[in-house]
Amino acid sequence: MMVTVLSGGVGGARFLRGMSSVAKMDNITIVGNVADDLEILGLHVSPDLDSILYGLAGLADDERGWGRAAETWSALEAVAELGGESWFRLGDRDLGLHLVRTQLLREGMALSAVTERIAGALGLSCRLLPATDDPVRTFVETPAGTFPFQNWFVARGHRDEVDAVHYAGAPDARAAPGVVEAIDAADVIVITPSNPYVSIGPILAVDEVRAAVERRRVPCVAVSPLIGGRAVKGPADRMLRRMAGGTTPGHVARYYEGLIDALVLDEADAPAELPAGVRAVVTRTLMRDERARRQLAQDVLDAAGAPA
Amino acid sequence: MMVTVLSGGVGGARFLRGMSSVAKMDNITIVGNVADDLEILGLHVSPDLDSILYGLAGLADDERGWGRAAETWSALEAVAELGGESWFRLGDRDLGLHLVRTQLLREGMALSAVTERIAGALGLSCRLLPATDDPVRTFVETPAGTFPFQNWFVARGHRDEVDAVHYAGAPDARAAPGVVEAIDAADVIVITPSNPYVSIGPILAVDEVRAAVERRRVPCVAVSPLIGGRAVKGPADRMLRRMAGGTTPGHVARYYEGLIDALVLDEADAPAELPAGVRAVVTRTLMRDERARRQLAQDVLDAAGAPA
Repeated sequence: MMVTVLSGGVGGARFLRGMSSVAKMDNITIVGNVADDLEILGLHVSPDLDSILYGLAGLADDERGWGRAAETWSALEAVAELGGESWFRLGDRDLGLHLVRTQLLREGMALSAVTERIAGALGLSCRLLPATDDPVRTFVETPAGTFPFQNWFVARGHRDEVDAVHYAGAPDARAAPGVVEAIDAADVIVITPSNPYVSIGPILAVDEVRAAVERRRVPCVAVSPLIGGRAVKGPADRMLRRMAGGTTPGHVARYYEGLIDALVLDEADAPAELPAGVRAVVTRTLMRDERARRQLAQDVLDAAGAPA
Repeated sequence: MMVTVLSGGVGGARFLRGMSSVAKMDNITIVGNVADDLEILGLHVSPDLDSILYGLAGLADDERGWGRAAETWSALEAVAELGGESWFRLGDRDLGLHLVRTQLLREGMALSAVTERIAGALGLSCRLLPATDDPVRTFVETPAGTFPFQNWFVARGHRDEVDAVHYAGAPDARAAPGVVEAIDAADVIVITPSNPYVSIGPILAVDEVRAAVERRRVPCVAVSPLIGGRAVKGPADRMLRRMAGGTTPGHVARYYEGLIDALVLDEADAPAELPAGVRAVVTRTLMRDERARRQLAQDVLDAAGAPA
């Protein structure tokens, strides 16, 4: 059973840890969001890919919820002391990865090849692919102006309401090598419980990726990132309320119109009215521990196996 | 009394800490070696300038003898784990400085301006100038081949004997802004107890710098880096033996022929036969603590004040 997962960062990584214990790692291909990548301190940082890498390699800091465990913060302290850019929190171990990635990119290696090398060095046997090797970047339009994603999300603490989201570079972007093939070859396509607008949206904004999902002949199952109409973390609920008019499972499902066959949602949101062609799968979606993560991944695979 | 000091890294930094307690910081200009700078992991590292910065800012690790105190090593551990270049030991706090420096250089700022900004951020009131803003790099010729300085010094542990030293880029290099002026305006010029070939030689290899020292009308005092004919640390003694034929104060003084008026040397090397025009100043040169560093700096200033 080949599983191809479109994934955002933190929530996606948590879900994938569950998936990695119920599906064979070798049979999982992850297509990760790279539209919140940024250049900072001269380094290329790919926060979503890294959350996935750290999560699956057992290196994630579960308490903090992002970044690496046993992290230190000396470099950024020195940067701040010297008046450098220190608003984006980069731990020292994390920096090590960014240094290696940036150097390989500067030598001309594509992000997909760099990511493959890093995943290999961390011992991952699943495939992790950036949605694209081209520079796609999310911008958010707010009453205070239009901001690059991380400037809004981190520097401004995602306090501004979002009126619209743009994916700069998406019209010209090609899917990274292997992405379309992995979607075409999948027995099930999964969309992680991530922010539709800023985590999954930019993946689907790459025409070749969206087209591959649209022409699927296998089930595509999304997991709602909302519980009781609220985001577990982050601004997904506020964004859906403002841009989609509400935070019910129906609002989530309509975002993925034509792309999904089932929406896995929490008991707190049932019963749900979903668009025609999208089946509701009700379960518990809060991934509070390893057992809950594994159960959610199993429910997703079961949903895919059930008759549509 | 304006003091202009030509300085190498670790030994130079230690000497300068003594100088900073006997001369007014505002009146000290340091011309630092940059020919052992390197690009590693995409970062511009200036080991000698940084040893001076850390030494004078009270941030140096006295026990290790190089780098910053309270240093951590997480980033380089991660780099090694990912198969990146980890042979050059970069601590996390140190990395913070390299990130800031590299970004400013990429934005087009000259190394001298970057160094001034960093020195200011660390609260230094003396002036620290790189000998040149141009890329001068030391190469050593050995029986095993010719190597860039750090590849020989760090990666190969400076075990290969050195037959010759080259300063690539030196013929085209201009002195950095302020260097010639600081030498011309000095009341005393000092050469730190550093390796003549790889620390002071590259500074003097910049024609404008050498010419300014040559035409001086004030005393220039060098401190020998040898005690009892041996280097306190590093390969200076082996290099002098092989390339100059010996390790007496006379051999050191002849390296600086036409450039110095006095050589400060250790009791262990007295009496010394020095070339005509170079006066021997005998004292204790081992800088084992703050008191010894201060005394040595005072002896140097006294030597400069004494009739030539």
